[in-house]
Amino acid sequence: MTKKKKSTKPVKLEKWKSTSDKQVAPPPAPLPPDERIGYAIVGLGHLALEEVIPELMACKFSRLAALVSSDEEKMEKVALQYGVKPEACYTYDNYDDLKDNDDVKVIYIILPNDMHKEFTIRGAKAGKHILCEKPMANSAAECRQMIKACKKAGVKLMIAYRIQYQPHNLKLKELIKNEQFGKVKYVEAANGQSSANPEHWRHVGAQAGGGALPDIGIYCLNTTRFLLDAEPTEVFAYKYSTPGDPLFKDTEELISWQMKFKDGIIASCMAHYKVHEVKTLRVHAEHGWMFMDKAFAYAGQQLTTARAEGEMSIQENIGLAETKQFAVEMDHFSQCILNDKESDTPGEEGLQDHIIMEAIYKSAETGKPVKIKY
Amino acid sequence: MTKKKKSTKPVKLEKWKSTSDKQVAPPPAPLPPDERIGYAIVGLGHLALEEVIPELMACKFSRLAALVSSDEEKMEKVALQYGVKPEACYTYDNYDDLKDNDDVKVIYIILPNDMHKEFTIRGAKAGKHILCEKPMANSAAECRQMIKACKKAGVKLMIAYRIQYQPHNLKLKELIKNEQFGKVKYVEAANGQSSANPEHWRHVGAQAGGGALPDIGIYCLNTTRFLLDAEPTEVFAYKYSTPGDPLFKDTEELISWQMKFKDGIIASCMAHYKVHEVKTLRVHAEHGWMFMDKAFAYAGQQLTTARAEGEMSIQENIGLAETKQFAVEMDHFSQCILNDKESDTPGEEGLQDHIIMEAIYKSAETGKPVKIKY
Amino acid sequence: MTKKKKSTKPVKLEKWKSTSDKQVAPPPAPLPPDERIGYAIVGLGHLALEEVIPELMACKFSRLAALVSSDEEKMEKVALQYGVKPEACYTYDNYDDLKDNDDVKVIYIILPNDMHKEFTIRGAKAGKHILCEKPMANSAAECRQMIKACKKAGVKLMIAYRIQYQPHNLKLKELIKNEQFGKVKYVEAANGQSSANPEHWRHVGAQAGGGALPDIGIYCLNTTRFLLDAEPTEVFAYKYSTPGDPLFKDTEELISWQMKFKDGIIASCMAHYKVHEVKTLRVHAEHGWMFMDKAFAYAGQQLTTARAEGEMSIQENIGLAETKQFAVEMDHFSQCILNDKESDTPGEEGLQDHIIMEAIYKSAETGKPVKIKY
Amino acid sequence: MTKKKKSTKPVKLEKWKSTSDKQVAPPPAPLPPDERIGYAIVGLGHLALEEVIPELMACKFSRLAALVSSDEEKMEKVALQYGVKPEACYTYDNYDDLKDNDDVKVIYIILPNDMHKEFTIRGAKAGKHILCEKPMANSAAECRQMIKACKKAGVKLMIAYRIQYQPHNLKLKELIKNEQFGKVKYVEAANGQSSANPEHWRHVGAQAGGGALPDIGIYCLNTTRFLLDAEPTEVFAYKYSTPGDPLFKDTEELISWQMKFKDGIIASCMAHYKVHEVKTLRVHAEHGWMFMDKAFAYAGQQLTTARAEGEMSIQENIGLAETKQFAVEMDHFSQCILNDKESDTPGEEGLQDHIIMEAIYKSAETGKPVKIKY
Repeated sequence: MTKKKKSTKPVKLEKWKSTSDKQVAPPPAPLPPDERIGYAIVGLGHLALEEVIPELMACKFSRLAALVSSDEEKMEKVALQYGVKPEACYTYDNYDDLKDNDDVKVIYIILPNDMHKEFTIRGAKAGKHILCEKPMANSAAECRQMIKACKKAGVKLMIAYRIQYQPHNLKLKELIKNEQFGKVKYVEAANGQSSANPEHWRHVGAQAGGGALPDIGIYCLNTTRFLLDAEPTEVFAYKYSTPGDPLFKDTEELISWQMKFKDGIIASCMAHYKVHEVKTLRVHAEHGWMFMDKAFAYAGQQLTTARAEGEMSIQENIGLAETKQFAVEMDHFSQCILNDKESDTPGEEGLQDHIIMEAIYKSAETGKPVKIKY
Repeated sequence: MTKKKKSTKPVKLEKWKSTSDKQVAPPPAPLPPDERIGYAIVGLGHLALEEVIPELMACKFSRLAALVSSDEEKMEKVALQYGVKPEACYTYDNYDDLKDNDDVKVIYIILPNDMHKEFTIRGAKAGKHILCEKPMANSAAECRQMIKACKKAGVKLMIAYRIQYQPHNLKLKELIKNEQFGKVKYVEAANGQSSANPEHWRHVGAQAGGGALPDIGIYCLNTTRFLLDAEPTEVFAYKYSTPGDPLFKDTEELISWQMKFKDGIIASCMAHYKVHEVKTLRVHAEHGWMFMDKAFAYAGQQLTTARAEGEMSIQENIGLAETKQFAVEMDHFSQCILNDKESDTPGEEGLQDHIIMEAIYKSAETGKPVKIKY
Repeated sequence: MTKKKKSTKPVKLEKWKSTSDKQVAPPPAPLPPDERIGYAIVGLGHLALEEVIPELMACKFSRLAALVSSDEEKMEKVALQYGVKPEACYTYDNYDDLKDNDDVKVIYIILPNDMHKEFTIRGAKAGKHILCEKPMANSAAECRQMIKACKKAGVKLMIAYRIQYQPHNLKLKELIKNEQFGKVKYVEAANGQSSANPEHWRHVGAQAGGGALPDIGIYCLNTTRFLLDAEPTEVFAYKYSTPGDPLFKDTEELISWQMKFKDGIIASCMAHYKVHEVKTLRVHAEHGWMFMDKAFAYAGQQLTTARAEGEMSIQENIGLAETKQFAVEMDHFSQCILNDKESDTPGEEGLQDHIIMEAIYKSAETGKPVKIKY
Repeated sequence: MTKKKKSTKPVKLEKWKSTSDKQVAPPPAPLPPDERIGYAIVGLGHLALEEVIPELMACKFSRLAALVSSDEEKMEKVALQYGVKPEACYTYDNYDDLKDNDDVKVIYIILPNDMHKEFTIRGAKAGKHILCEKPMANSAAECRQMIKACKKAGVKLMIAYRIQYQPHNLKLKELIKNEQFGKVKYVEAANGQSSANPEHWRHVGAQAGGGALPDIGIYCLNTTRFLLDAEPTEVFAYKYSTPGDPLFKDTEELISWQMKFKDGIIASCMAHYKVHEVKTLRVHAEHGWMFMDKAFAYAGQQLTTARAEGEMSIQENIGLAETKQFAVEMDHFSQCILNDKESDTPGEEGLQDHIIMEAIYKSAETGKPVKIKY
């Protein structure tokens, strides 16, 4: 521990920028590689290969320690590319053997949604902390089982939300909390993209647990709850799937809903699987609005505020250094483990989203507003 | 007539700009002043004095011919400023005498909403064409009476919508009609501003006929109908007024609603009286979105489109010369009169908005979706 | 005079916007039409017909009183369109008869540059105040003669610069003067457009007195002087004309120059006749920069500032209501006449630009820096 | 080798995005860690610790193999943080011992400019390929010695320019080459920032070889040459240092220069050490302009083009996925080594910039334009 503390102290460099320019954070001070928390990555699809594993290479407190996949040929390739030894590669069958691999402290589950519950519970039983992709599962009931299993096993459970760790969203939350523009009055959130491939598990109801709502609509929901630090009391929703479109044979193409919060705040949200990409968030307050473009994207957030000053209207673009979102997320969990703390997005956070998503679906199906009791 | 036609031909000027720069329209060719259509302006509030009368000075087919106000002292000032003779100034009492003023062809009604019906009907009886501010009245029933009265009198009735004559909105309609980005899938529209003064007629239910909905929400509604060239079949709405706020003692502060259109298109709209100014419109289509900032403002429209090209995302800002919106609107009506045609926004257009607004209010009051029959 | 003062007091309207939204100026309070200053417009080309005369209709202190043109057929059309009587239409031959027209107080000269001197001197002799388009003339020597003639005749002489009366440029000047971002260190200014038609007088050296420099480069020069409130002490310039291009047979296509100001400030400027339209201005200061897009355009100015705050970079867009630039300019001169004051851009301002433009040309021709003595 | 080829083939994933959204590159396919090219990082200042080493962790063909520093305490910390063994840590004294370390293939020199020559020559003698930060040295003469030494030793020499490998700049070059907006006519480039700390080697002439010009002005110069694929034939420059400012006791605060290229193209450039950060580039062409904000920054490039279409002005923002610039640069060099090719920015590229910078300084010192012979 003494050595570790020493090693993580950032190197102090001489100053060279004046305060007239944006200041830069001190250089990173990663833990020595062998002291970093080892991760087993479960599932080698788009997200794992395009985002998570590459960013794991850039982590300061986390490192790649094992792979789990049902596609052994693919796993062999990936293992070679990232230097994972064959003995640290697991199939779904021998996944439980991770319990004997002390090099692995965290299991990061990046599987189709219907597999989250099983792999979380098996992973917890193997004595590993669990980082599970969102949506947490396919129902609130499954979420409760997962939370219970992790508690029982004495391991931590974190849901892989990114917004709670993303600088522009954190700055936005600060502006709201400080009532920089007075009280919040209304929220608009939209998350849309254009899907293809009806065979993909995202378009198979049994695997995905739904369509646009749990995959991308969850960002509108979760981010609004995070920013307002409040829970909705009622929802009303419409959903739609183009008749005959194979992409939406048993999941929704569009979900469009309103949520009531305290003090008359309404959040108007939409998630769409058949529009050009859009990921926007606008928070309307008494004396100004705050807009974020690419709010839920992996990169490219743009935060703008607007207010009036006499006869002038002022729009401010707030530039913040971007972070590698998945690296930050994993390092957050690693630090929670190093310091034995709860993460900012534990299983309970995932459960709450599922409770509300179930109300949203119920409203869309019954054509009536649905109240949410707490 | 021969002379008039000659006079309106634009002067032809020598070319000096290459096609590498934005082309400019030919110079205006106004009608000779005494051949322009004479307008009586009824009501001398903010809109009349800040926008309408100044822009009337810049019209090509229209001119200021008379004033009508209940505040004679104010009217005297305005008449002096704009060169209106005392004999062309009318009070509400002798308003009907306009029938004897041949210099006036159009009456432009810029009064509190509850006075629209009376002044339209009296104006029609005086044999004048009527240009009436939006919202057309305080109920669909009133609208029907106004339409009937104008038909009976053989005069034209135009509702003073601006969007249908505004270049950026017209361009947007063209993009939608041509399916430039495929089919429209979803619409978001927001119109918010920050009100003050509970004494103002806008905040007195009996005068305004409602709160944020008929005053500013109508833009979300009317523009969506205009752009989609379609009518909603169902609405669901929430409304809210902060308890104890004198501004909203008997009108709504917020109206937040969804409208269902054919082919699964949903329009999500909001109008708010207690947020910093926002006037945005986003039309989501299959292969791109189209966004307009300041969509409903008197000036400053910004039209942006987004699409993908391979690994690039392309955002296009489409710059168009701004027009004086009220001048264009009045000149449109004047040309309709000169050429004996119906305007693009006749009384029936205003009536249709009231039918839908009544459904929106009904939904907000009953807590249930309301279907609209045609 | 008593009546006039009464009439110009703005009407006071009840408040309805909260201070959370941009405040609006009080409604305009124009002088009664017959008390406004009468203008004779000399020259009926693009600028007069597309901008000046239409905006004159919207003036508060100015009105169209006469026309002067060598093209009688065109003048007849324009007179009819704007209600100018035949007896208020003058040719170049009987231009001097304006002295007998008491309805005309100001002559606004919008002619090819080489005619500015003659028409200014003749107009001054006719006892009229002179508003003359920029560039003031074809040489500093001509400017001096014009100033002398106006002084001798006891009439005012204003050069029709727009920047000094344009809200975004005035705001920028205020930011600079207040050292909002510390001291100014560097200025970049570019004014480019794409010309056509070699026959146009702008491309005939004898008429235009130069190419891109006096027509559009003058904005970079004049605006920099205005903003810095300082005069350059040395210039260095390159110029270029594409060999064989008939547009540039005897005038320059490009002028690219640097100007030295006090305290080491350099202004780097360019004017180009063969690029897509660009009208940008960036003022670099110690703690921030200020950028204006469309800085010199007739409309559409966008003012943005940038600064740092700790780890944030902040860009502010400052929205200001646009004005009709030519109307403001004419009303400024009219008010100067009504109140017997000097305008903000008198003949001396035009002369100074010519002195510096002559140094710029000298540098381009000799290939050496040229110092400017004061 | 067979195994390597197999391992670098990217994993093929099932399609899930439609072409209506931006396409994503296939997942990275890094070389197995022990097959990647080993780098020795020489110098552990801001650039090395804040940018280079963190990005080296994310490389696909490169890895950290050794450290070289004169500050052994700092080096020990860094070695621990990044898992470099003590035996792979070198001081300036035993730097030449790298010749015996087969794990190191490339030496990346990130030292004060005056040390580039010595460490390049010593490194080449040690048989290692050299990646040297820009500016290449303190004079063209030094550059020639470095090139000669590397040739003699049979090792590759690459200068660490980033622009040539940065997607937005590459796209811009493509637009120019294809004459998307016709021929280029003019270039504006500005690179400014706000320095502090007179003790920093950047502000010591003997170490930095100059002030704003070689440090940041070089980007304006090098990028313009890269984009135009042409060399300047003449330069004229002003330089300035605020009297008494200790930051600029023997180096320039500002350099402002124009460069003449073929066909009348002028590039107007500036580099400033005492303004708020600005890194802009505007290329003016016949039918449009191309603007890049943050053109030379480590991240955040924004590429915008403008053109006219009839009465519309169109501005296009071209969004491209950002890359880790230092990672791309190192991986480029590693691939050159793996495939025995010359890099896109060899020593000759660095030499050419020094030849031109010497002309710029000469012009600023003599007050005259300086021609550059080839």
